[in-house]
Amino acid sequence: MAQNIYDDPGFFAAYSRLDRSVAGLDGAREWPTLRTLLPPLAGRRVVDLGCGFGWFARWAVEEGAESVLGLDLSANMLDRARSDTPTAGPVTYRQVDLDRLALDGAAFDLAYSSLTLHYLVDLPRFLAVVHDALVPGGAFVFSAEHPILTAPSHPAFVDGPGGGRVWPLDGYLDEGPFTTDWLAEGVEKQHRTVATYVNDLVGAGFTVDRLEEWSPSAAQVADHPEDADERLRPYFLLVAAHRS
Amino acid sequence: MAQNIYDDPGFFAAYSRLDRSVAGLDGAREWPTLRTLLPPLAGRRVVDLGCGFGWFARWAVEEGAESVLGLDLSANMLDRARSDTPTAGPVTYRQVDLDRLALDGAAFDLAYSSLTLHYLVDLPRFLAVVHDALVPGGAFVFSAEHPILTAPSHPAFVDGPGGGRVWPLDGYLDEGPFTTDWLAEGVEKQHRTVATYVNDLVGAGFTVDRLEEWSPSAAQVADHPEDADERLRPYFLLVAAHRS
Repeated sequence: MAQNIYDDPGFFAAYSRLDRSVAGLDGAREWPTLRTLLPPLAGRRVVDLGCGFGWFARWAVEEGAESVLGLDLSANMLDRARSDTPTAGPVTYRQVDLDRLALDGAAFDLAYSSLTLHYLVDLPRFLAVVHDALVPGGAFVFSAEHPILTAPSHPAFVDGPGGGRVWPLDGYLDEGPFTTDWLAEGVEKQHRTVATYVNDLVGAGFTVDRLEEWSPSAAQVADHPEDADERLRPYFLLVAAHRS
Repeated sequence: MAQNIYDDPGFFAAYSRLDRSVAGLDGAREWPTLRTLLPPLAGRRVVDLGCGFGWFARWAVEEGAESVLGLDLSANMLDRARSDTPTAGPVTYRQVDLDRLALDGAAFDLAYSSLTLHYLVDLPRFLAVVHDALVPGGAFVFSAEHPILTAPSHPAFVDGPGGGRVWPLDGYLDEGPFTTDWLAEGVEKQHRTVATYVNDLVGAGFTVDRLEEWSPSAAQVADHPEDADERLRPYFLLVAAHRS
């Protein structure tokens, strides 16, 4: 099973101060791009895999979703999600280890997952469950840390051979667990290649519709000049697929 | 149109000395992987887009292909391809600028392209022609230089922040033409992201079946220890798709 780092008090406190935790979807700079990958939600049954504070679940309801099932490993996240979401509405939250996910078959029109898949240990198992939980033609839209981001043994920009900054890439082909000190020490994630994401999707019975290798746009960097290096390599991988 | 660098005498002489030019498919270290992406060829009509010396065309005939049309921009390459291929057989060669490609509709069961797409200026146009030239369900299998290989402004391994070697990645998101000094000065190629390859395929009406982010295997590096750095990042992108 994946590490439950979001229930670590120090990690949770730091995570709660991020823009995306305070401002929700509008505080997530990849959201404008991720949103373009989504189908219309009106009348759709949605499952949010790694729902966090429930920002997407509540947005999906605003967009007319018939129901939203929000799943997360973290009790901390779900406590706040529940307290921020009207209890009489169409959103249900459930604590689940996504590496042991079980869902009813053909119960959803859209599966959504934001920045969660890089925590999962068994991606093929997870994708098989998500595939079967979707109706034929149902969409699966997700974001994850880009494999170029998660590859390096020393993941920080350095001065390069031409005088500019570079991302010191190594380890791209070496898949498996790694630890980072993002918000807390010893956060466990999984490095996979882009090819593995695509091939595992195809292997589970998905058709890939679109990839986005996202980093802050030039306009976003103009507002945050301290992020200029981020344009040198992709940060998140965004994927739209559907059950074939 | 793409630069016709293979008809540059210096480039051609250097290219002709590469393992893949002397030993054919067995001299191309990615071939064992690329071969796994191919469908059975018996009775199939094949078009080879960037056929070079015709090694693949002759192999396809050995595998039972009904016909092979080999296309290349380089007169030098085609001269040698013709001289190395039995004239009475099912292989035809034609000089074509692939950026201005025209093919009969639904005329082929397999389109194949080895290390050519990174030269093409207009990938969407090319993919649309290849799509229409295939029968429904027909396969398109290609290799190209991996976008991680073609991205850096200074594409050579350097010592990294942890003491090991790293690939100094920058420019990944900046698509467009660039020049390298591979075998000759001023060789013009096109940098595209993995997402662009996938999205342009989907946009042209293909379904993506498999990606391989290839570099020499650990076993291949054991035979060529001077290539150890190649394991630090992918070298070629191999793709299998089919006309939806």
